[in-house]
This record gives sequence, structure tokens and C-alpha cells, in this order.
Amino acid sequence: MSHSVKAEIIAVGTELLLGQIPNTNAQWLSEQLATYGINVFHHSVLGDNYERLSSLFSMAQKRSDLVIVSGGLGPTEDDLTREAASEVLQKSIVEDEETMKKIEDYYKQNGQTMSPNNRKQARLFEGSDILVNHVGMAPGMAVQKDDTLWIFLPGVPREMKSIMKEYGFPYIQNHFPDQDPLYSKMLRFIGIGESQLEHDLKDLIEAQENPTIAPLANNGEVALRLTAKAQTEEKAKEMVHFVEQKVFDQVGDYVYGYDDDSIERTVFNMLKEQNLTLSAAESLTGGQFIERLVTLEGASSVCNGGIVCYAQSVKENVLEVPNLILNQYGTVSEECAVSMAVNVAEKLDSKIGISFTGVAGPDSVEGHPVGTVYIGIYIEGESPFAESFFIDGDRNMMRAKTVKKGYGLLYHHLKRKKD
Amino acid sequence: MSHSVKAEIIAVGTELLLGQIPNTNAQWLSEQLATYGINVFHHSVLGDNYERLSSLFSMAQKRSDLVIVSGGLGPTEDDLTREAASEVLQKSIVEDEETMKKIEDYYKQNGQTMSPNNRKQARLFEGSDILVNHVGMAPGMAVQKDDTLWIFLPGVPREMKSIMKEYGFPYIQNHFPDQDPLYSKMLRFIGIGESQLEHDLKDLIEAQENPTIAPLANNGEVALRLTAKAQTEEKAKEMVHFVEQKVFDQVGDYVYGYDDDSIERTVFNMLKEQNLTLSAAESLTGGQFIERLVTLEGASSVCNGGIVCYAQSVKENVLEVPNLILNQYGTVSEECAVSMAVNVAEKLDSKIGISFTGVAGPDSVEGHPVGTVYIGIYIEGESPFAESFFIDGDRNMMRAKTVKKGYGLLYHHLKRKKD
Repeated sequence: MSHSVKAEIIAVGTELLLGQIPNTNAQWLSEQLATYGINVFHHSVLGDNYERLSSLFSMAQKRSDLVIVSGGLGPTEDDLTREAASEVLQKSIVEDEETMKKIEDYYKQNGQTMSPNNRKQARLFEGSDILVNHVGMAPGMAVQKDDTLWIFLPGVPREMKSIMKEYGFPYIQNHFPDQDPLYSKMLRFIGIGESQLEHDLKDLIEAQENPTIAPLANNGEVALRLTAKAQTEEKAKEMVHFVEQKVFDQVGDYVYGYDDDSIERTVFNMLKEQNLTLSAAESLTGGQFIERLVTLEGASSVCNGGIVCYAQSVKENVLEVPNLILNQYGTVSEECAVSMAVNVAEKLDSKIGISFTGVAGPDSVEGHPVGTVYIGIYIEGESPFAESFFIDGDRNMMRAKTVKKGYGLLYHHLKRKKD
Repeated sequence: MSHSVKAEIIAVGTELLLGQIPNTNAQWLSEQLATYGINVFHHSVLGDNYERLSSLFSMAQKRSDLVIVSGGLGPTEDDLTREAASEVLQKSIVEDEETMKKIEDYYKQNGQTMSPNNRKQARLFEGSDILVNHVGMAPGMAVQKDDTLWIFLPGVPREMKSIMKEYGFPYIQNHFPDQDPLYSKMLRFIGIGESQLEHDLKDLIEAQENPTIAPLANNGEVALRLTAKAQTEEKAKEMVHFVEQKVFDQVGDYVYGYDDDSIERTVFNMLKEQNLTLSAAESLTGGQFIERLVTLEGASSVCNGGIVCYAQSVKENVLEVPNLILNQYGTVSEECAVSMAVNVAEKLDSKIGISFTGVAGPDSVEGHPVGTVYIGIYIEGESPFAESFFIDGDRNMMRAKTVKKGYGLLYHHLKRKKD
């Protein structure tokens, strides 16, 4: 096995020390470095103070093979980061002609006058390699001192990420070629809770080592992150695939997707494939179900729209839920949910109607406690039905979980329809 | 002026170094400490490694007056944090009877058997003060070594915050009584862009020192954070108030609220006060306008619901926008927006109707480019009207900004109605 790289990440910025923003740069860089098999041992945040910067840079030079510094190099910032690093790395600072020209061109193109402090952004360490910035002015740079590779980046997340993806990570991979890669895959579940999932996978989770198996839960959805480390990416993939199969044997019915998939997109794709259109009648969810679908490009091909029937009068007059149902069963009932689903499909000329009615709180409704939810589904050519749920959490957590439940129900029915 | 406290924050957790979560604990602690006039000079993140923990703890003991450590003390964690700190602080570790009893009681009450490693959570430093945890099992602790105060906290944000609010910050204030407090106030604007705001306040922003003036922009809303430091909180408040008045002289018309206010809540309160009900007809915003309102408790008293008319057929058949308008002006037009606003108010029996139609992309519609938006407003007893906007950003940024614009328009009209 090759020598394992020790990395550390330093962020310079007073706004971080004041707590105005979280250090998402360190999070993102760490997550990415892990996929390259590089271990991060320190995150640090400092302000613009020469002594503290010097002292941390000296320590980093001694203890790390790779140091990534973000922030502290912009036009409005004090030049302390550059100067403190210059001293520790024993590299002088020179103005880079090409970079300067780029900055001047940028201002010319935009018809603005350049303020003199923008020149600072062209001041690079002697002998450094430029990491081009396509979305901003200040470039990144890579520079070596003894056995340590230093990468300097602007602090703006969008610029930092663009530079790293295009130039930084390839540079690092090239510099440390033999790292044991890590392969990670997320399995996404719907219709099963975290404790049920952990119970069903108890033996696997307890025996885990490599790959690791990490359950994650968020607003009514559960995911498993499988992560393997091996000498080749192929080997790591194989190891993950092996465990994935075992997970599927136990709970495969509940897996709807991987990695960046979302249940909304998965349902959207199924609707599109099966050439179906959808409308929703939403009481307690207040439009959130349709809103999630409309975030997706091309939503108009599967979604006609919806009716947010928050007031009973809208259920009565716009959705035309029969008075008989409203009086006999109430608005929070299976019967009302079914009628809402059928009627919204009919009125909005869709092949599928889905409905949400229930009690989001703070007060109970018609004798039903907060958390009671009915979801109705009508699919053309099938019997309409409704299911009831009890959903916990505060008002908005509950509404979000209800929307997820709706997508989950639809997912399972569309899948059955397809099979 | 009193001696200024140097604080640092240390988070222990492998999940942070792997980039699985951002270090929100450090952010929150820093933000809170700032309001107590305490300056934070370092954030650090480490994993469970004895040597690295010892080395950082020794440094912290030398350089800081206040060290807050979160994480690394839970039942499943290696005992390295405790032991490394024990060595540096020269305090032995003892099992605290009272804490142990609380943990045992917790398990008894929940009818669960306690696993032996839960005993770890009762292991405290000798001579430390317990900071009670009302939302979890592991307490926080405060312990002094020479001139440095150390606070140890569980890593779970909810538990960490609860302990600090109830016991930690009062303890710190008591320990360092004479800090110059910082007072901070956020002014929230609607209907004015960031560059216009900075232009109008150019002189104030350029002359800023104490209070500082920091503009913040996010999805179509702008805010200004005014922050003053003074020997008393009263004095700091006065200083902020003085600058606030100057800001109001220039751009007071656009201020809708402060601190945690949101434009949705402000509009909600105005509707309630004026005893008005609202419905929305939403095309490109897909239900997001109503959804934002329904997040607020008590929404049913001001909001009847809405119609998401994503497909033209819904505009035609459900909203009953006249064919004449759809054919002559198209769905993306002032005329259509007005008709949608009036009809949704009529159909859903509301005193106010608001409508959104436009082009969210990726393709242009009826010859209108992506970004074209019409917002229609009908208020009972007034002439309905529509305004057109060009809104930039990707699909979802654009939709979010459009919703904000809608709340902004409504805000200005309700304010005028009231005055």
C-alpha cells in the first residue's frame, strides 16, 4: 500500500469567526478529497492576523503533505495571508502578467474602471502553478515547499469549486498518484422508516467494516451510504456492489434511487415514461406537492396543476366535494380524500389525481389529533382509494413528510402498474 | 476598557473531517459569543486521535481564555477526547453519581436496557461544574485550568444549543463579567436591489466603522446588518439606532422588518390586521406563493387556497380565463395575469387575488424570453392591475425571486391601503 497523504484545510475569513456563515468550503473539499482516497486531519479557521496565520502555516508545513488554503487573497482583503505564507514557504510574491492582463480585460469588457486594489489578485508566489478561475478574477495557485503541496484558492464557494473541479483535483491526483481510492454509493429508500431499516439490516450493519454502511434519515426519507476503500477504484466498486446486493435481498423493494436521485424526479420520470399526467388537491400540504414537481425542468409535460383547497369552501365550491361527504365524514376522512383525488383529476383533465387532507396543527380538527393525514389516489382505470397515516414532527416537518409519503405511495403504485 | 477575552472553538468528529456535515456548531457558538462581546480567534476540527487532540488542547490552553470543545464525549466514541483533555488540564476523571442516576432513570423510564458504554457519559472531570442537558443524556461541563475556562459539550447541535442557552452562556458571562457587548440588528428590505441599496447608502457605507454596516443579498431580498460595540449594551443600541435613522432617511420606504422577520410573515400579519383573505393563481411559481404562506401557523384565517394552473387547459377550464384573452394576448401577458387574479379571488371567495404567469424556462413561450414574469393583483374595491418584470437566475432561483416579488408588491399595496 502506498504512503497515505495527510491533508489539512485552512479557511481565512472574519465572517467565519463571527459565525455569519458556516465553513462549507472545508466540508465540500473534505468530501471530495475522501473520494480521491485522501484523508483530512485538520480543519482550521483564522482571521486576518499575521502572527496567527504564520504560526498555523508553519505547523501545517510540518505536519501535512497537502495544505489547502481558501480565502484571504481577494482584492479587498489585507495582504496578510499572502505575506504570512510567503515567509513560511520562502517564496517571493510577483505580479503575474498574464493574470493581470485577464483582470484588465475583464474590466474593459464590462466597461468598468478597475480600482487599484484589484491588482492584488495578480500577485502570485514565485514558481507557483496557476489554477485558472473561469468564473471569477482571482486564480488559484499550487506551490510546493519541501514535501508539502500547498493550494491557495479564493474564498467564494462558486469560484473555489470551479477551480478545484477543473484544475485543483486533477493537479492533486497527479501529484499524489498512488492513493487507495474510496468509492461511495448512496441508496435511497422510500416507504420504510429508519428503525425498520436498521432492524432489517442489523446483521449487515453490525458486521460492517469495509465497506462501511451509514444510515441517514431526513424528513421522512432514509438513505444508506456504502463506502469502500481499495487499491483500485474497480475493486472498491466491486466491494460496494457486493454489499449492495445483500441490502437488496433484504429491503430492495424500498429502494427507489441512488446518489443525487430524488423521489420527485423518480416519480416524474415514471410519469413521463408511462405518458401520464397528474394533478393534486392539497389541503394541509398547501401546494408543496405540486411545487416540488414544478422545480423539475419539463414538469409541464406531466403536470397540469393543482388546487390548494385550504378552506372548506374551496373543497366545496371549487373541487365540488359533495356536501353529503363533507357533512357525514368531515374534511379529514378517507371519503373526502378519495373525492378530492377523483375530482381534481376530472376537473384538471389528468390521468392521475392525488389528494392530501389532515391536521397540521396547532389545533385538532373535527376531533382528529394533530398528525392525522389522509392521502387519496385516483389512477385512470383503477379504483380510487385513500390511506391514512399518523405523521409526527412540528407543523412544517409534518407537511414535508406528508408530501414525501405522497410521492412514496405514487411511486409504489406506478411501479406496480409498470411491472 | 476591560481585558478582551480570546476564545476558540474545537469540534471533535470524524464526520466533519469526512465532509459529511458542515461545522454548524462552530458557526452558532461564534455568532452567539459575538453578541456577548467575546471574540473568537480559532475554529478547529479534529478526529479521535490522542496525539492530535493533546497537541491542540495544549496550544489552546496557552493561547486562549475560553475554549469550547464540542463532540467526542458520547457513548459510542473512543474516550480519547476525555483522556487527552484530562492530561492537559491535569484533572482526573471521576464517575458522577448524580449524572449516572439520571442516565439509569432515563433507561428505566423508557423501558430499555442500558448498554454498558452509556456509563461513559457520566465520567466528568474532577472539580468541574455540570451544565445540565435537558434534551439528552450527556451533560456539558465547565472546568478551569490556570487562567483558561474550558467548556465541554455534546456534539449533537440540539443538545449543545440547549445546554449553552440555559447554562453555558450565563456561566461564561458570569466568569468574564466585563466584556464590551456587541449589539446587532438586521434591517430587511423588499422592492430594492442590492446595487441600488449600496448606491443610495454609499456615503454611510464608506464612512462605516462602529457600527459596521454589512449588506447581505439572498434570492431577491436584501438585508443590512448593523453592528455596534460599546461599553454598555444600551450605548451600543443607541449607536445602532443612530445609523438606523440615517438608513431610514435614505431608503426607509423599502424596510419591511427586522432580524427574524420574513416578508411572508409581515404580509400575513397585515392581512390578519386588515381582516383580508387571499387566494393565488400560480402558473410558473407552481404553488410556491401559497405554500410559503401555509408554513405559518394560523394561515387558514387569511388564506383560502389557490389554483396551480400550470397547463393552459387549467387556466381555461378551471380559472375560466376568457378564450378571447388567451387567444389575443397569450398566457404570458398583462391581460391574462389580471384575469387570473380577479377570477381566483372570485372563485375562491377571497378579498384579494394574486396571480403569477411567465417563462421559467428552459424554452421561451409565445415569443417571450425566459425570465419574463407578469404578476397580477386584485384587491376588493380597487382596480385590478398587473406589473411585468424581468427576473434572472436559473429556473428555481427565478421562481423563488418571483414569489418574493409577489409578496413585495402585496406588501406595498397593503401598506398604502392602511395609510
